[in-house]
Amino acid sequence: MARKKAASCDWAPARKKGKPTQRKGPAAPPRTRLMRHSADHSWTGVKTERYKLDDGTWADVIRRTLVGDRGEGVKFHLRYFEIAPGGHTTLERHRHEHVVVGVRGRGKCKVRRNSYEIEVMDTLYIPPDAPHQLKNPYQEPFGFFCVVDAKRDRPRPV
Amino acid sequence: MARKKAASCDWAPARKKGKPTQRKGPAAPPRTRLMRHSADHSWTGVKTERYKLDDGTWADVIRRTLVGDRGEGVKFHLRYFEIAPGGHTTLERHRHEHVVVGVRGRGKCKVRRNSYEIEVMDTLYIPPDAPHQLKNPYQEPFGFFCVVDAKRDRPRPV
Repeated sequence: MARKKAASCDWAPARKKGKPTQRKGPAAPPRTRLMRHSADHSWTGVKTERYKLDDGTWADVIRRTLVGDRGEGVKFHLRYFEIAPGGHTTLERHRHEHVVVGVRGRGKCKVRRNSYEIEVMDTLYIPPDAPHQLKNPYQEPFGFFCVVDAKRDRPRPV
Repeated sequence: MARKKAASCDWAPARKKGKPTQRKGPAAPPRTRLMRHSADHSWTGVKTERYKLDDGTWADVIRRTLVGDRGEGVKFHLRYFEIAPGGHTTLERHRHEHVVVGVRGRGKCKVRRNSYEIEVMDTLYIPPDAPHQLKNPYQEPFGFFCVVDAKRDRPRPV
């Protein structure tokens, strides 16, 4: 179990002031960066990560961070998640808000007691503290963007 | 010329503390909101606005703000822009960064001296102070998301 990456998809530890998220060497000013999309919903220069540490609360989810982990100054992170058929994210809540945009296939998002069907380009705003969970009960991968504030609280499983 | 909306697509005046962007009545806590997408790239509950005031620097651009103008607490705004064939945005620069994601058709983005072809789901990060302009030299509409910080400086035409 050597792979200790981010503890959660939705949480990043507070950065020290003046210290960029870039891990290697001194902070270089960010440069224009085109991330070219492929049919399999990968992007050039963007790695595939697991959703978070295995803790039994989720299944079959991967993450690709397009913007936010390479020294940019933006106050938000843009991430792509993909849930394989039958998979789901953690049922959790947190103070920070979510914006989810369907990108591939379709899936469901439970927010409090409601369930929302998400198809490509459907956009869901999830308010603070609302317990929520994304699921893929279908036969194709369900991919979506999730935009969050760069500084955010750690999710709590519900 | 009664339509005096935002002065620029990329700029919003600083909000007074505690005063939400929502214009009518007292601030209501934001609620879960599904914006259902239609084939014409409109979304339920999202209005179509002009890009900015006519100043001769742009042509044939509309804007739809999905997240950021309805009292949300997020530190970013998510907007959809669409450039008709032959249209273009203002050639401008500003301190805030842009994240552009192709959503419909294809187009071009000039950043400094380079030109980037943007197709659906291609994602472009534009760093601070880089003069940039989006164009649609093709026959179909060119639609893209643009994510920006909620608090940002006013663009300056180049």
